[in-house]
Amino acid sequence: MIEQVRKRKPLIHCITNYVTAGDVANMLLAAGGSPIMADCIHEVEEITTICQGLVLNLGTLKEASVESMIKAGKRAVQMGHPVIFDPVGVGASSFRTEAVKHILREIPCTVIRGNVSEIKTIGKEAGIGFNEAMAVDGNGSQSRGVDTREEDVVTEGNLEQMCTFVKRLSQVTGAVIAMTGEIDIAADGKKAYVIRNGHPIMAKVTGTGCMLDGIMAAYICGGDTPVLEAAASAIAAEGLCGEWAFEKMQKEGSGTGSFRMYLFDYMSLLDDKQLEGGRKIEIR
Amino acid sequence: MIEQVRKRKPLIHCITNYVTAGDVANMLLAAGGSPIMADCIHEVEEITTICQGLVLNLGTLKEASVESMIKAGKRAVQMGHPVIFDPVGVGASSFRTEAVKHILREIPCTVIRGNVSEIKTIGKEAGIGFNEAMAVDGNGSQSRGVDTREEDVVTEGNLEQMCTFVKRLSQVTGAVIAMTGEIDIAADGKKAYVIRNGHPIMAKVTGTGCMLDGIMAAYICGGDTPVLEAAASAIAAEGLCGEWAFEKMQKEGSGTGSFRMYLFDYMSLLDDKQLEGGRKIEIR
Amino acid sequence: MIEQVRKRKPLIHCITNYVTAGDVANMLLAAGGSPIMADCIHEVEEITTICQGLVLNLGTLKEASVESMIKAGKRAVQMGHPVIFDPVGVGASSFRTEAVKHILREIPCTVIRGNVSEIKTIGKEAGIGFNEAMAVDGNGSQSRGVDTREEDVVTEGNLEQMCTFVKRLSQVTGAVIAMTGEIDIAADGKKAYVIRNGHPIMAKVTGTGCMLDGIMAAYICGGDTPVLEAAASAIAAEGLCGEWAFEKMQKEGSGTGSFRMYLFDYMSLLDDKQLEGGRKIEIR
Repeated sequence: MIEQVRKRKPLIHCITNYVTAGDVANMLLAAGGSPIMADCIHEVEEITTICQGLVLNLGTLKEASVESMIKAGKRAVQMGHPVIFDPVGVGASSFRTEAVKHILREIPCTVIRGNVSEIKTIGKEAGIGFNEAMAVDGNGSQSRGVDTREEDVVTEGNLEQMCTFVKRLSQVTGAVIAMTGEIDIAADGKKAYVIRNGHPIMAKVTGTGCMLDGIMAAYICGGDTPVLEAAASAIAAEGLCGEWAFEKMQKEGSGTGSFRMYLFDYMSLLDDKQLEGGRKIEIR
Repeated sequence: MIEQVRKRKPLIHCITNYVTAGDVANMLLAAGGSPIMADCIHEVEEITTICQGLVLNLGTLKEASVESMIKAGKRAVQMGHPVIFDPVGVGASSFRTEAVKHILREIPCTVIRGNVSEIKTIGKEAGIGFNEAMAVDGNGSQSRGVDTREEDVVTEGNLEQMCTFVKRLSQVTGAVIAMTGEIDIAADGKKAYVIRNGHPIMAKVTGTGCMLDGIMAAYICGGDTPVLEAAASAIAAEGLCGEWAFEKMQKEGSGTGSFRMYLFDYMSLLDDKQLEGGRKIEIR
Repeated sequence: MIEQVRKRKPLIHCITNYVTAGDVANMLLAAGGSPIMADCIHEVEEITTICQGLVLNLGTLKEASVESMIKAGKRAVQMGHPVIFDPVGVGASSFRTEAVKHILREIPCTVIRGNVSEIKTIGKEAGIGFNEAMAVDGNGSQSRGVDTREEDVVTEGNLEQMCTFVKRLSQVTGAVIAMTGEIDIAADGKKAYVIRNGHPIMAKVTGTGCMLDGIMAAYICGGDTPVLEAAASAIAAEGLCGEWAFEKMQKEGSGTGSFRMYLFDYMSLLDDKQLEGGRKIEIR
């Protein structure tokens, strides 16, 4: 798959945030794709038309971006392009929550990718009761903004319930759900991939989630792999690079600056054989 | 203090600029905090509410940001959150100077952090004559934008006068003043800390000032140290990491790209013992 | 020249995009200049006034930026400051194409810098038929957004025609044209420099074009070298650093993350002697 992506260099239109836009662009390039960042309402339709996929990331959301996202999203769907939606910080403000609802109402997204808190908030908005689907109910607790709430963690203990929840959310939204955390889950309505790659230090670098949007877009739009499998591979790929980067950092005694750079290094070198050898994916 | 910050992971709401936002986020993480970057008027109050501190940085200022900053600032003050204000480039345009005056009128900031030219401009606006407080008067000279004017330098010769000026500005504004340059000064109305850490090469990397805003916010909001001491520690901490990063760069014969990465590395590894051993702080 | 630039530290006003702004700032610093990023219509004239040069980069273009660019550009021209214009993605949307036409109509740019597809699009808009000037005609093919179309490549085979085209475009626009690709060409109406430095991996890092805008601005505004020669030197300088960075990356077996850092390292260390020894420039 990766070889194919690198050969086809899918153009990905990204409407994203100004904090991690450069990192997303560089990670997309490292994964084999090519980024176009453009968010002005006057051009998003034309830009998306010449691309092969669309990433919508709520990061530093502003009112105008929501309109641009919906306009671009509609055109992308018309063109048959995959749309990867990252509802960054949904639940942290009503503005964000309303924006997410608006986007999900208007755009049939291909993938919704977020951390556990974000995906749970979307589940709640989609009318999926957490008590029903999961043992843990974090709704009453305070948002950690773009971070995951401490109680929103996937453990071996609640994994089965979490998979059920993610599958149900996929059924309701029609999108593949990619929920990242200690243990990652990617699922459609029937099948869940549980991914155990990655390292906690990845949370010490800003934008590893946003970068994953880019990798996912590259793998989904540049290969012939089905969406769910490509999404799971992207998660495993970033996690694997995170493991290697952590090992190298540890060996050197360096810190998170070096770790961050190695993440790009390993992603740019990654091939299918390495990914196959290193991924820790289980089907549920 | 640092241990405590890392344990508590204070959430810091940053309204900052698109040039250094990613670096600020990564430095905040390296210092033990967690960033939320959000500047839309429709959500800044809610976002600030879930945080423990607020950074206002004028970097790439636009009209809408000023309104957002004031709205967020008022709420932060209401909540009892520290507000760190960085008047980037004040004096370089009347738009910027007016914005700074507006913000200072509306928000009782906890810390005002800037380079010597910026702090002198604020002093002038606050009605503190330079000739009165300091030997050097740089008012007549042309702004260097976000850079320090060449004549705006703290030397051993004018240090006493500079400390007096900074203390007086603190009295007038009610904020701790953190003025960074060759020699750094952090002061409240009574006490000035003179910090001699750092290296001139730090000016060859964009955003070391903005990053300091983030470190300062983490230390002030995540520990139990009084504001002035936490601010002085943040200055010493970044300076110390700058010294180490320069040494490593020199040893390798590498350049400012490596230097910049090492800055993040050392900040992510820094502990209280290292800081205590390496800081060069004097009280005046 | 580089020594002079480092001594004078020219202040460069950049109206650029949020994807690569930090990288442009750091590269400008590494090249010996100093960046001010400011795009708000209320201050661009004042900001440009205190600077020595202006970079206009269309990256993540929005409506308000076009106005700010024109306002800043007019003032810069009035002040006699060089204006470096980078029409990122022109041809990818009519909004972008119209913005470029508008800016070129209003501002007599000193340098227009773009990839082959972008420069060809400007040529077309300027009424220079490609069939007339060049063997290859890529007009019918689809835009690759900010990337170069595959057929838009300068080869040894079409080099003569490409040089003729670039010279003619310079005659029509009055600007030095800097067209970057496999082989780079910088030309005024009479003379073309063909530059063969660089490495294809530079396209795997986002913003090497934007960064070149910054280097070019530093060299043009901070030295006494004529514009065309300074522009050609900037291209050679970045290319040379790219060659060295690639070599170092290869030797280590690292990836594009390290490559990107080395690019900054080598630029910050570059001196006139190294540039003279390493540049591969031919006059046509």
